[in-house]
Amino acid sequence: MKRYVLIVAGGKGIRMGNELPKQFIPLNGRPVLMHTLERFYRWDISAEIILVLPETHQPYWNMLCKELNCRIPHKLANGGETRFHSVQNGLSLVNEPGLVAVHDGVRPFVSVEVIEHCFTEAERSGAVIPVVPLVDSIRERYDESGLSRPADRGRLVAVQTPQVFNSDWLFEAYRQAYRPDFTDDASVVEAKGYSVALTPGNQENIKLTTPFDLLVAEVYLRNQTE
Amino acid sequence: MKRYVLIVAGGKGIRMGNELPKQFIPLNGRPVLMHTLERFYRWDISAEIILVLPETHQPYWNMLCKELNCRIPHKLANGGETRFHSVQNGLSLVNEPGLVAVHDGVRPFVSVEVIEHCFTEAERSGAVIPVVPLVDSIRERYDESGLSRPADRGRLVAVQTPQVFNSDWLFEAYRQAYRPDFTDDASVVEAKGYSVALTPGNQENIKLTTPFDLLVAEVYLRNQTE
Repeated sequence: MKRYVLIVAGGKGIRMGNELPKQFIPLNGRPVLMHTLERFYRWDISAEIILVLPETHQPYWNMLCKELNCRIPHKLANGGETRFHSVQNGLSLVNEPGLVAVHDGVRPFVSVEVIEHCFTEAERSGAVIPVVPLVDSIRERYDESGLSRPADRGRLVAVQTPQVFNSDWLFEAYRQAYRPDFTDDASVVEAKGYSVALTPGNQENIKLTTPFDLLVAEVYLRNQTE
Repeated sequence: MKRYVLIVAGGKGIRMGNELPKQFIPLNGRPVLMHTLERFYRWDISAEIILVLPETHQPYWNMLCKELNCRIPHKLANGGETRFHSVQNGLSLVNEPGLVAVHDGVRPFVSVEVIEHCFTEAERSGAVIPVVPLVDSIRERYDESGLSRPADRGRLVAVQTPQVFNSDWLFEAYRQAYRPDFTDDASVVEAKGYSVALTPGNQENIKLTTPFDLLVAEVYLRNQTE
């Protein structure tokens, strides 16, 4: 089956005075986003990569690709108002039936094994997401006054990406009207009545969101290449 | 009020062939556990520190303290069969009424501000635990076959330590018989009908459990001392 990878790096445009969006911050001399693309390219050079980027970021990205001599073939789609709309835009470039992975641009550390496993499982079951166990105890607030009770951590998992789907299911799901409770692609697909299977992710596949995460990322990369 | 800190580093004994327990792994030349003690010492040099360690680890710990010239006063209690029993053993060295913090030995990055805040709040309310928001989407498995649904992340928080309690409450709570659903000290205290208040923790206060966490820890320390 044809394999697509939608890498979503939406977010707001680059405005004067704002800091550089996380996906462009350099790690070992290359932007986060390029590391993310490399993971998927290393996994399967024949997979078709579609990168969803705000239109205003695209000239900068193209310049980076040229400067850094990036040879990973990929198409660009425009970022939308929300992540939901960004995925919709990316899907417009999926032109054959197959499997489609949707992946956060700022998760450069997904392992090749997890990618492969998600695709294999999605071929079998139609929809798969990688999950990892939670380390801390978890509590649930159950009323406005701040009262809380322990939650059963054994039943809870943290959701990562790539989330991989049969393209027919994903197209059908993304034809729905946007709802704010769509927290990830799995929830969009489930809203059409499909079941989503869980598969183990890799713990290092963190979403780079804070300056501290970026520091960790640098050391992690350095350690991997030594 | 008198302030006690119970640092729990239970875990299994050092057996031949096993790897070094996380609490003894060196970070910047000193074991994780020593960093943890330093945090509390830096917060309040007059707080009484009780370290709960398996009896088989104690000679090794004493040797490390001597070698590294550790001048932080602390008492040792023996680790028990489970964390619950370790805390019971530590409590046997609490000999005056006051406030008692229970803290994981492998959380060396709790901030001094969070410690202070937990104690201040516990003096007011009797029982306080630090919590942080969850970064990833969360799912809940709801039956044996592995079916799952999105959980409302906004209502969930990750629980850290130190968990700080009025000593009377904690003593009463730890006179109960052990139950496997006691996941942390808060759950033991709640089982006696007391309410536990939540206060914001610091995100860096992670529990060092994986090799990746240790990498994170090294970066964090290096950054703090620069």
